[in-house]
Amino acid sequence: MYSQPVSKLNDAAIKLLEGKNLLYIGTINRDGTPQITPVWVDTDGTHVLVNTAIGRVKQKNVTRDPRVTLAINTPTDFYDVGLIRGRVVEQVTGPQADKHIDKLAKKYIGKDVYPWRNEKEKRVILKILPERVLSK
Amino acid sequence: MYSQPVSKLNDAAIKLLEGKNLLYIGTINRDGTPQITPVWVDTDGTHVLVNTAIGRVKQKNVTRDPRVTLAINTPTDFYDVGLIRGRVVEQVTGPQADKHIDKLAKKYIGKDVYPWRNEKEKRVILKILPERVLSK
Repeated sequence: MYSQPVSKLNDAAIKLLEGKNLLYIGTINRDGTPQITPVWVDTDGTHVLVNTAIGRVKQKNVTRDPRVTLAINTPTDFYDVGLIRGRVVEQVTGPQADKHIDKLAKKYIGKDVYPWRNEKEKRVILKILPERVLSK
Repeated sequence: MYSQPVSKLNDAAIKLLEGKNLLYIGTINRDGTPQITPVWVDTDGTHVLVNTAIGRVKQKNVTRDPRVTLAINTPTDFYDVGLIRGRVVEQVTGPQADKHIDKLAKKYIGKDVYPWRNEKEKRVILKILPERVLSK
């Protein structure tokens, strides 16, 4: 089902990340269990970029332990799956994170501005560096 | 996005599990990171039923630590997501597991018999009892 694993994003994984596909991000809860949540995603070609808010469980989890496991598939061909292991190497807040959530809103729901913005929340980009990538 | 969590499978979760949808199962690797793999799934109405083979990483993981996190969505509406936390309460091998993988093959690929059966592998049903279910 899969090709040999590679240590960075390959074309198949980039295509999945650039597509309008949900990413499942797995982080490690304090009690050792996995947290899995569906998120919007894109990529700069090297990192997987996820946008969340400071204080959410997954953000607290990756601050404590940056190791993450990612899974993504396309709605149209659900055997076209990408499985990525890596770690959060940087967390970016401020205007860059705010612009990034708007970019994701455009991609996923066609809106120029993320409509569920809450002034009390501080957006953050989780920059994930892949270490092991499995794809078709 | 979600209704209040409940402690057992509700109608929305059962519909997702009965549909031709991929389940992501998150287990705990020996090094503490999550393993996430896409699998076929069905349900008996109480348990989530996953079929794997003895010796696979996820089967070894749940034997060491039965706590699992599950995520499922439909290809047609990917905001229709179910998130389930629970534990593997039983592992069933033998004829029942062999029949179950054939049933899943019928559901997912329309074959009466699972075509990738390997005589050296021993199929096993992971019976997962949900403890916390989040759905639409």
